[in-house]
Amino acid sequence: MRGKITSVSVRRGQGAAADASQDFIAVEEPLQIRLNGRDLAITMRTPGHDRELAAGFLFTEAFLDRADQFAGIEDDDKGTVCVELAPGAQTVPEPVRNFYMTSSCGVCGKASIDALRAAGCTALESDHPRVDAPVLASLPDRLRASQPAFDRTGGLHAAGLFDRSGALLDVREDVGRHNAVDKLIGAALLAGRLPLDEHILMLSGRVSFELVQKALRARIPVIAAIGAPSSLAVETARRFSVTLAGFVRDGRFNVYSGHQRIVRASGGTGAE
Amino acid sequence: MRGKITSVSVRRGQGAAADASQDFIAVEEPLQIRLNGRDLAITMRTPGHDRELAAGFLFTEAFLDRADQFAGIEDDDKGTVCVELAPGAQTVPEPVRNFYMTSSCGVCGKASIDALRAAGCTALESDHPRVDAPVLASLPDRLRASQPAFDRTGGLHAAGLFDRSGALLDVREDVGRHNAVDKLIGAALLAGRLPLDEHILMLSGRVSFELVQKALRARIPVIAAIGAPSSLAVETARRFSVTLAGFVRDGRFNVYSGHQRIVRASGGTGAE
Repeated sequence: MRGKITSVSVRRGQGAAADASQDFIAVEEPLQIRLNGRDLAITMRTPGHDRELAAGFLFTEAFLDRADQFAGIEDDDKGTVCVELAPGAQTVPEPVRNFYMTSSCGVCGKASIDALRAAGCTALESDHPRVDAPVLASLPDRLRASQPAFDRTGGLHAAGLFDRSGALLDVREDVGRHNAVDKLIGAALLAGRLPLDEHILMLSGRVSFELVQKALRARIPVIAAIGAPSSLAVETARRFSVTLAGFVRDGRFNVYSGHQRIVRASGGTGAE
Repeated sequence: MRGKITSVSVRRGQGAAADASQDFIAVEEPLQIRLNGRDLAITMRTPGHDRELAAGFLFTEAFLDRADQFAGIEDDDKGTVCVELAPGAQTVPEPVRNFYMTSSCGVCGKASIDALRAAGCTALESDHPRVDAPVLASLPDRLRASQPAFDRTGGLHAAGLFDRSGALLDVREDVGRHNAVDKLIGAALLAGRLPLDEHILMLSGRVSFELVQKALRARIPVIAAIGAPSSLAVETARRFSVTLAGFVRDGRFNVYSGHQRIVRASGGTGAE
């Protein structure tokens, strides 16, 4: 299996200069996910943790709900993961109307908040857990410290799972941010650690609807991101009582949803 | 139709402070693309230029090859674009084996270079056009100057089309970078301006395989990006003689493929 980064020749340029040298870039390769003997999905991902990616994808896209619904997950180390479900396990939660869907919406047509509700997603407990503001502000540095590949390529997204004291529990990197989240949640699923309802998900980039939806499946109550959220990410977080903080960087952050979970240094919370 | 950005309430935090204010964020909403009366795809996009998005998507994903294959494209301004193809026009270039595919691979299973070849993609003329290195280095500032929404939200990707003198011809912004590229190429398709074989595509973020593949469909010979490329983006660019420059910022850039098109200030090219 190839690694997460690879070396390529490059011409660096500034004005007239053009020296040839080597550069490290993120590896992107297709992964075929097969379900019960049938081709199901292809995702362009960074190799590594492919069983977790397949498990996480199937869980966050609602093909199944529990780890015991897997009968087997085989990785051939050549770009294919074959998943067998236990007899009687759910496979497709609702009829698939569209045969093409982007990574941003999920296989079940959950392209709206109402569709998430219809698929059985419910709101989280709105004021638990509490997270200290300084802990929240410290997460980017903690994530970066555990993310060696990014520093060398600038091309990988990271997703980190923290507890509410700010301790890093797990991290995954990928060229696709949805894959990084699926790998993280898949690892927790396979380890029997779901739901993640005491945890914080830290993202190295922006936050779209898709990522909030995936976190919601794992019941993650707090999402923090270095980048900006989208309108539908904010709307979804508010509807399901997920705390969503964006632009978490340089000791600052913006809380777009669920600010009552954030405990300020004074000892009070963000709630009025 | 809603705009590209929207205002939301936000709590800004730094230590104990938590002032409530307003923030601008990028709008993300689903767009349903229907083809000949059938649901085809849902993409999470920023509203605007939706006809171009549908046209560009169908073209870059090889559902059709020419603008005259459209019999009509109707936008209902409520999140659905209905496309009717002319009688006899191609619809699906090869059997679709997988009913779920991410935005990163395309509907036709073109998740590899060999699959692109099989789909009829051929290499570009390898040393045309030539682009002056200072022009290449100037593109990020020119793109940013035309991208007002990004400056306010930090949440939109931009794709700009330039001629080889560095003149901006067109720009599109979207929460999804693949959508921004599809809108740009769709606009050119509908205006009868394809192939774009004298042009430069400038991207505000990273470059994945998917974006190189889309540019290749439009025969764009030079791709410049502010962010990092992936391994498969570089490999694809090299195989099809596309110039790929990454980390184009602060007057510098790295050329990963096709450096012979870049003319250094001395008057020579990057070729030995």
